[in-house]
Amino acid sequence: MVETATGGDARPAGEFKRDSNYITTRITADGRDGYPVEAGRYRLVVSRACPWANRAIIVRRLLGLEDALSMGVCGPTHDKRSWTFDLDPGGRDPVLGIERIQDAYFARFPGYERGITVPALVDVPSGQVVTNDYAQITLDLSTEWRAHHRPGAPDLYPERLRDEIDDVNRVVFADVNNGVYRCGFAGTQEAYEAAYRRLFDRLDWLATRLERQRYLVGDTITEADVRLFTTLVRFDAVYHNHFRCNRSKLTEMPVLWAYARDLFQTPGFGDTIDFDHIKRHYYEMHRDINPSGIVPVGPDLAGWLSPHRREALGGRPFGAGTPPQPPKPDETVSAEHTPAGWASRR
Amino acid sequence: MVETATGGDARPAGEFKRDSNYITTRITADGRDGYPVEAGRYRLVVSRACPWANRAIIVRRLLGLEDALSMGVCGPTHDKRSWTFDLDPGGRDPVLGIERIQDAYFARFPGYERGITVPALVDVPSGQVVTNDYAQITLDLSTEWRAHHRPGAPDLYPERLRDEIDDVNRVVFADVNNGVYRCGFAGTQEAYEAAYRRLFDRLDWLATRLERQRYLVGDTITEADVRLFTTLVRFDAVYHNHFRCNRSKLTEMPVLWAYARDLFQTPGFGDTIDFDHIKRHYYEMHRDINPSGIVPVGPDLAGWLSPHRREALGGRPFGAGTPPQPPKPDETVSAEHTPAGWASRR
Repeated sequence: MVETATGGDARPAGEFKRDSNYITTRITADGRDGYPVEAGRYRLVVSRACPWANRAIIVRRLLGLEDALSMGVCGPTHDKRSWTFDLDPGGRDPVLGIERIQDAYFARFPGYERGITVPALVDVPSGQVVTNDYAQITLDLSTEWRAHHRPGAPDLYPERLRDEIDDVNRVVFADVNNGVYRCGFAGTQEAYEAAYRRLFDRLDWLATRLERQRYLVGDTITEADVRLFTTLVRFDAVYHNHFRCNRSKLTEMPVLWAYARDLFQTPGFGDTIDFDHIKRHYYEMHRDINPSGIVPVGPDLAGWLSPHRREALGGRPFGAGTPPQPPKPDETVSAEHTPAGWASRR
Repeated sequence: MVETATGGDARPAGEFKRDSNYITTRITADGRDGYPVEAGRYRLVVSRACPWANRAIIVRRLLGLEDALSMGVCGPTHDKRSWTFDLDPGGRDPVLGIERIQDAYFARFPGYERGITVPALVDVPSGQVVTNDYAQITLDLSTEWRAHHRPGAPDLYPERLRDEIDDVNRVVFADVNNGVYRCGFAGTQEAYEAAYRRLFDRLDWLATRLERQRYLVGDTITEADVRLFTTLVRFDAVYHNHFRCNRSKLTEMPVLWAYARDLFQTPGFGDTIDFDHIKRHYYEMHRDINPSGIVPVGPDLAGWLSPHRREALGGRPFGAGTPPQPPKPDETVSAEHTPAGWASRR
């Protein structure tokens, strides 16, 4: 997603409002929108900085969709024309052959005026974007792409738990995922304080819920955990400072910190996290919040690798399934950008 | 002191340099600079926001100089013409009768062009500033004002320890007191990172020193503790976020956190701290760092009141002396601005 203070409408009270106008075309098993699920046909375009794209990176890993659905990774920073493939040789995505993800948007919708965002799914043969509807993308990877899941893939959106997952996702989105942005992009002290209280009230509620159960819904990892994780993993690195979400650090909220570490240490979660990209994106891009663009050296990341002891709560991370294999070499985050790299630098 | 990014010279490499050009006139027992120590003659002008002024507030409390040396308190924010008495009825200091501390500077030096800073000592009869040399002010309160110390006042600058205190003060000033400003006002990523490493290296060094001894020098509170305390007490409230000193919070550095809590809970230290003034000053004043001027609600302050268990290290806080009495009602920090107030609001 693209995030700027000016990207959201400033409501009269100074409250941040997220632009939620996405391309809702879906890639489905039956191809009813004209885009049938097909191995090798689509490319998932992400930035590792972006929490909304991070959901799709994790779900693709957990489900073992790497061979069926390739991934293009944009750099952590971009200009007004949005995300670019500046990490790739020649600054060009090797599969799509484009320099900017906007080219895929314009290929389908000339003059497209809404947000040019990641995650985006692009139809490789036509070079056209199919969808950037991040909330639907992960659900569809779980439900529509089943034929291409790896053996042992977990069910992240089990039918019998969908109502509960949807309920949790709704409040987590409003108060936490988007809540941190409502803190950071508030236009007034009052709007900020309201968002801050709502955020920490919800985090307290989540901590109570997670005190005696290992995962948010049921006893296995679900879509609800993926969505909470992508905010928690950015909390101390960015939101605590940059968005003034500073009642306490994640490291000072014992239940949530252990929960987040448990997921981080679970294959498919922590191995998608590039703390360098995350920090550079927020601190370099939001010059309205951080005029100098200087990126903090901290926080100390080593704690992410410390024991979490959540196994004692029971739960089966992958249900009847198995963890995914490690990421392939070309999709492995640079060690320098991980807690292990941080620990070795000290 | 007045602090702005533009207040310090930007060295070529983007390093912050503190303007250290103060009025070095001294108030002494023998009156050799024309200003003899005299009860009731001078007024200490401070802001509770300012760490450099905070030193003088603490030392005055510890030594029981309240009756001999009155205190005027400026509000936490000010305009280009510097600190004002906006907390006082009519916006006017009741003793000096002025609205702005600059008036006392101009009374002595018409057209004074250097920094209009706190702490400042003002000669009440003439209305003229005597000195704003914050480093000398506290030493002189300890050594030149002895005749007016309370019974049981500690010796904060004992002769036999002065060399060691001076040595510690030198590195604490360079790397910590001023080090946090060098992080916050660095003009380049490189200058920031150099300041950050120097700061945390020094904090690690201090933590090692304080692991087995209760105070920095000797076994009693000295000037060295006062100077380190005023930076540590602002660390999580301001420097961690605002100045990007974010390897870890003070609360995550166990030795320094216990040391700071020990001092905070010692009469004369914590009772001088106004967290509201501290936060408002930095976040509202430094619009070049925080353009919105929004003041973070956090951090949670309740931990300042938790047991520190440093008594086990021995030491005698006041040596052969005694703690000061509680502050007088008109010098008591508003409960809402203290950890107790924070705890009761939750």
